Amino acid sequence: MTEAKLISSLNEENLSYLSKTYVPSRLLLGPGPSNAHPDVLKALSLNPIGHLDEAYITLMSEVQKLLRYTWQCNNRLTLPMSGTGSAAMEASIANFVEQGERVLVAKNGYFGERLVDMATRYKADVSVIDKKWGESFSFEEIKYEIETQKPAIFAIVHAETSTGVLQPLDGIGEICRKNNCLFLVDAVTSLGALELLIDKWEIDIAYSCSQKGLSCPPGLSPFTISKRAEDKLSSRKSKVPNWYLDLSLLNKYWGSDRVYHHTAPVNMNFAIREGLRLIAIEGLENIWERHNKNAIKLWRGLENIGLELHVSKDVRLPTLTTVKIPPSVDGDSFRNHLLNNFAIEIGNGLGDLSGKVWRIGLMGFNSTEENVDRLLNLFDTELKKFSIIDSSTF
Amino acid sequence: MTEAKLISSLNEENLSYLSKTYVPSRLLLGPGPSNAHPDVLKALSLNPIGHLDEAYITLMSEVQKLLRYTWQCNNRLTLPMSGTGSAAMEASIANFVEQGERVLVAKNGYFGERLVDMATRYKADVSVIDKKWGESFSFEEIKYEIETQKPAIFAIVHAETSTGVLQPLDGIGEICRKNNCLFLVDAVTSLGALELLIDKWEIDIAYSCSQKGLSCPPGLSPFTISKRAEDKLSSRKSKVPNWYLDLSLLNKYWGSDRVYHHTAPVNMNFAIREGLRLIAIEGLENIWERHNKNAIKLWRGLENIGLELHVSKDVRLPTLTTVKIPPSVDGDSFRNHLLNNFAIEIGNGLGDLSGKVWRIGLMGFNSTEENVDRLLNLFDTELKKFSIIDSSTF
Repeated sequence: MTEAKLISSLNEENLSYLSKTYVPSRLLLGPGPSNAHPDVLKALSLNPIGHLDEAYITLMSEVQKLLRYTWQCNNRLTLPMSGTGSAAMEASIANFVEQGERVLVAKNGYFGERLVDMATRYKADVSVIDKKWGESFSFEEIKYEIETQKPAIFAIVHAETSTGVLQPLDGIGEICRKNNCLFLVDAVTSLGALELLIDKWEIDIAYSCSQKGLSCPPGLSPFTISKRAEDKLSSRKSKVPNWYLDLSLLNKYWGSDRVYHHTAPVNMNFAIREGLRLIAIEGLENIWERHNKNAIKLWRGLENIGLELHVSKDVRLPTLTTVKIPPSVDGDSFRNHLLNNFAIEIGNGLGDLSGKVWRIGLMGFNSTEENVDRLLNLFDTELKKFSIIDSSTF
Repeated sequence: MTEAKLISSLNEENLSYLSKTYVPSRLLLGPGPSNAHPDVLKALSLNPIGHLDEAYITLMSEVQKLLRYTWQCNNRLTLPMSGTGSAAMEASIANFVEQGERVLVAKNGYFGERLVDMATRYKADVSVIDKKWGESFSFEEIKYEIETQKPAIFAIVHAETSTGVLQPLDGIGEICRKNNCLFLVDAVTSLGALELLIDKWEIDIAYSCSQKGLSCPPGLSPFTISKRAEDKLSSRKSKVPNWYLDLSLLNKYWGSDRVYHHTAPVNMNFAIREGLRLIAIEGLENIWERHNKNAIKLWRGLENIGLELHVSKDVRLPTLTTVKIPPSVDGDSFRNHLLNNFAIEIGNGLGDLSGKVWRIGLMGFNSTEENVDRLLNLFDTELKKFSIIDSSTF
């Protein structure tokens, strides 16, 4: 039927030897992805259905309702974006920035830097408050900058995955409202794990990811905006310069019209419904308590071994702990040892902290006492084998 | 520990009744998604692993190798984008258009229109050749327009899912090269199902989706670019105005550096590896033949029942057939009948063709003789029940 000559170097004989898809089983205690809950993986592997099927439309509504609970908000426009957390971060900029508007970014880590990069691409007039990687911003500093700079958007990271800092957010919303500014929060490493109150804290734009607090694989990113942010969106002078992430189009599909925008990643939405349902059943307050309790246990255990934590206790992030790599230890070798011999992943530092800290995540399904015990035990028995000089120093 | 007051209307009691995630099983013979292969769903539900894990890096390389075979190309920059097909469509514009450059779009359906919308958002000087929905472009027309208009990019849809037209592409690549123009092809409904020869046809930029020819759920979109397109990308004067889809950043992760860009949707990549592996094992020529054979069987069967097809035979698309809804039949009622009583989805027409045609897909795993027989049998026995006037007309 066809006379096409297939490219010989790529013909099927070179590829058909490939074995069935397989990946090793790991305990993921790094910065994410975290392990997915087994019930989530079951939901993920259901047969796809059509993205305009009534059964899918019902599932979409349930996902939105569950997301509103998890975000603790009543925002109409609450949905999972069809991409990983970075896509939602970009949506938070692309939809709300018009050329030349001032965006103030509080930058104390890798993800603050990324917000700056994105806002610049969307031609904002970007200004930055800087902090060292591992420190947080005080309320007074933020208040002063917002009042002085009068930005259209103030953006801050709630839980900096690159440093392990938990940024207090209480009161900032009010300052933003008084100064006619939208309050944008990166909640990638806090949603579904740590106290986060969108409505009470008067947050206007927030996004997260699926692979941390929600115990799903990566691929979707919860997103929510307030009525104030909706108003700003509908009063835009120019079209959103990003089609895939255009909330006005997405809203026609996720809102009451259900107008086709793009073919939804239906299976990932099955998975997130299940992850969110498990959260609703456990209850947010119980979940927050569990994450806090297990983090404290980890911190104490690490300090008992003689290790030092990178972030001071008052702003330390329960979902992601940065541990200083002792000068006597080759950090990468130890990480690889844990991965290859014990099937446990912990993370290297990112950016400025690469080689200086390990990053240990306890998120969602993975935040358990058993996991903490298992990891502490390995730090206790294995770390001394990696000391370059003297194992008695820790 | 926390004193937060949870929003009462959203508290867990209102949500905990929600049952385990479930969706009905369907045979998806609409415009997509198509059913996923059972082995793909198994791979999808493997436990996630880290996106910088050596095991994942190996899997990425295998996915790229398998994609090059499926695209029939040797392009270095060949990868799956972390979004659905529309994200890849946007990447094909965002990375290669700079403000004011001319983009010529051949528009004969919904997806051509979308290309125009996107190119406009990226501030291209967009010009359009129009055709009625259901017709294709001749080589001479295309040649004339490229030579006259001298666009920087010529964009065309290989397989128009909205109309059921298969656009012949042979020879266009040469015209584009002679006129210093990049040749951009939408292969959403052809990759892995119909003859498509990226290198031989001198296509510079092409994208597709996971949920059609590749028998995966929606969520990833294969993408490939030629050396010419790479050169254009690296000679850009301005940064790509889209961070998530910026190929220069993606290339650092998928290229040899493996620098973290965004957290990859790892499970969807497990799935696509398996879908592509099944393609390599069956062999592309066999797959093309299977899709053609089953489509011809469907077309004959529909015509035997007395139905008329929307597209003339010479440019009819084997993966997606548009069938005229007889004037005596309420098209939506019949579709709903098939879905609700036989668990088979077929599609309504899109845009201009809404209510005028049904869309029947035979793609990937779903292109089987059994599925054709099952559907034809239902058209034969059930359609007469939906005639508003006289059932003897078909």
